[in-house]
Amino acid sequence: MTEFDLIEALRARVNLRRDDVALGIGDDAAVLDVPPGTQLVACTDTMVEGVHFLEGTDAADLGWKSLAVNLSDLAAMGAEPAWALLALTLPEADSKFVEGFGQGFAELAARHRVALVGGDTTQGPLSVTVTALGTVLRGTALTRGGARIGDAVFVTGTLGDGAGALHLIRDSGPGTRDPDKQAALRSQSTLFQRMHRPEPRVAVGLALRGIASACIDVSDGLLADLGHVCTASGVAAELDLDAVPVSAELRAQFDGAACLEFAMTGGDDYELCFTAPAERESAIAAALAQAGCHATRIGRIVAGAGVRVLDANGGRIDTPNVGWEHFSR
Amino acid sequence: MTEFDLIEALRARVNLRRDDVALGIGDDAAVLDVPPGTQLVACTDTMVEGVHFLEGTDAADLGWKSLAVNLSDLAAMGAEPAWALLALTLPEADSKFVEGFGQGFAELAARHRVALVGGDTTQGPLSVTVTALGTVLRGTALTRGGARIGDAVFVTGTLGDGAGALHLIRDSGPGTRDPDKQAALRSQSTLFQRMHRPEPRVAVGLALRGIASACIDVSDGLLADLGHVCTASGVAAELDLDAVPVSAELRAQFDGAACLEFAMTGGDDYELCFTAPAERESAIAAALAQAGCHATRIGRIVAGAGVRVLDANGGRIDTPNVGWEHFSR
Repeated sequence: MTEFDLIEALRARVNLRRDDVALGIGDDAAVLDVPPGTQLVACTDTMVEGVHFLEGTDAADLGWKSLAVNLSDLAAMGAEPAWALLALTLPEADSKFVEGFGQGFAELAARHRVALVGGDTTQGPLSVTVTALGTVLRGTALTRGGARIGDAVFVTGTLGDGAGALHLIRDSGPGTRDPDKQAALRSQSTLFQRMHRPEPRVAVGLALRGIASACIDVSDGLLADLGHVCTASGVAAELDLDAVPVSAELRAQFDGAACLEFAMTGGDDYELCFTAPAERESAIAAALAQAGCHATRIGRIVAGAGVRVLDANGGRIDTPNVGWEHFSR
Repeated sequence: MTEFDLIEALRARVNLRRDDVALGIGDDAAVLDVPPGTQLVACTDTMVEGVHFLEGTDAADLGWKSLAVNLSDLAAMGAEPAWALLALTLPEADSKFVEGFGQGFAELAARHRVALVGGDTTQGPLSVTVTALGTVLRGTALTRGGARIGDAVFVTGTLGDGAGALHLIRDSGPGTRDPDKQAALRSQSTLFQRMHRPEPRVAVGLALRGIASACIDVSDGLLADLGHVCTASGVAAELDLDAVPVSAELRAQFDGAACLEFAMTGGDDYELCFTAPAERESAIAAALAQAGCHATRIGRIVAGAGVRVLDANGGRIDTPNVGWEHFSR
């Protein structure tokens, strides 16, 4: 199977049409119509086997997730996704893998009306690089740099499920590269759905334009990502540990300390962490309800630098050193 | 060295500023101003160690070439390059490699005023995926699909140098992964410059807008790439073997048959192959002279399908079967 055939197989799978694609796959480059009055928003993200996903990961899950992590970045900008380019490197031309990959990719692409407009399939160690392109009305992009002292800090959904799922897989001992074993584990817990098929918060990002002062997606872990917002905004944040939202599924599988560790540092969540003036809380709740989502207020922006974690009494927790054992609910 | 540091090191190297970058590296995504009246042109290309480049390839050469192959695709569309995103996967955080890579990338980026606006550095087997973004005035993109019966076929520069260089390296026996050996070989012939530092024909692509009826860059080999034009345009091409331009450097290193084989099937040339009405030949020569380049007329578009190669007497050569021995000049 040649490179051209692989691209054709993907094109057949990922066949969403958009009027703004003047020229799609099949030429040297795609030609795209960016709507007047908008700005282009662009990001790229690579997933490497053995680093970002386990050997034996289902091809359809990989197709989904490779697009999801990029749409999550667009969501964090408040952008509307439009187009994607896919660079897929495979050890061998494997039409079954390509079909599965294309199916997962196409499923998420259809949900967000993303057209695949370009690609490159190459031979080599398994990895996927997706470039996602979207648009925002001029000047409305959400950035990391807009948090102001006095703003409240929010996060959507719950945190830590993806990290919990990874822990369960690793804990299950040797043989985790076996697709059957991965499938069996998956059937046991919804945590695996969160790990393999994260839902990028695109509608939330769109709803937050004009409301949020800063926004980031939680991919590295809440502490790290909120830290990026603080650095970019020149402020500090106080985080109320008790307020950090954790799912019932995660609590059912792990003790409180582990739940907190996953939620605070696990990453792979693809929720949005954002800041907004505290008085906008009810407007936020209404906007997010429209987007089918809930956000939790977890802290506030203060003067200084870095992220401080506070216990239920407002006492400061020295996060990197003590772990979460003493603070688990 | 963390991912963040690697991106910072690259950002420091590749520091070209453009007014149309509203938000560059450092947020979840870049925000870019696409000029009114233009269309966005986007492409992506991956290079994998051991597949697209040899182990031991100089980091700066790799930085240059990973951008060059993408700018060549933009050139084939007649697009003006503007922005690039870089996904760099490295076996280990190697600041010396990143510095070299960034230097080569930056050198070519500066030449074409390309701003690096996004990136992802990950750990894994060495590979590079660049996404290049540019613009064309609405409706002016050159495509593969516009060749018409009666058009002449042209190619810029000379063909086969890159393939010749690769042959010299492979022919030099074991040890070709050794950077010192590669450097020694390189000093012997300008062919290696063509292989490692191809010059994307950006100015030519811009000059050909409104003149060329179809255009493609020669990356897979002249026969294959002209074949793509024929397929997309629903036509056939006749190629005059004697007219195919080969450099004096290549002739000095190889016999005529090898030169023709490299030129016709070698690929890795990054010249532009284009079609235009035959009566535009002098306009083409003038436009290309402005762009500092020369094009050779190598054939014509006819009815049918596929590419036919003709000898000096107009006799048809059955290309895949006979090789080039009998037709070498």
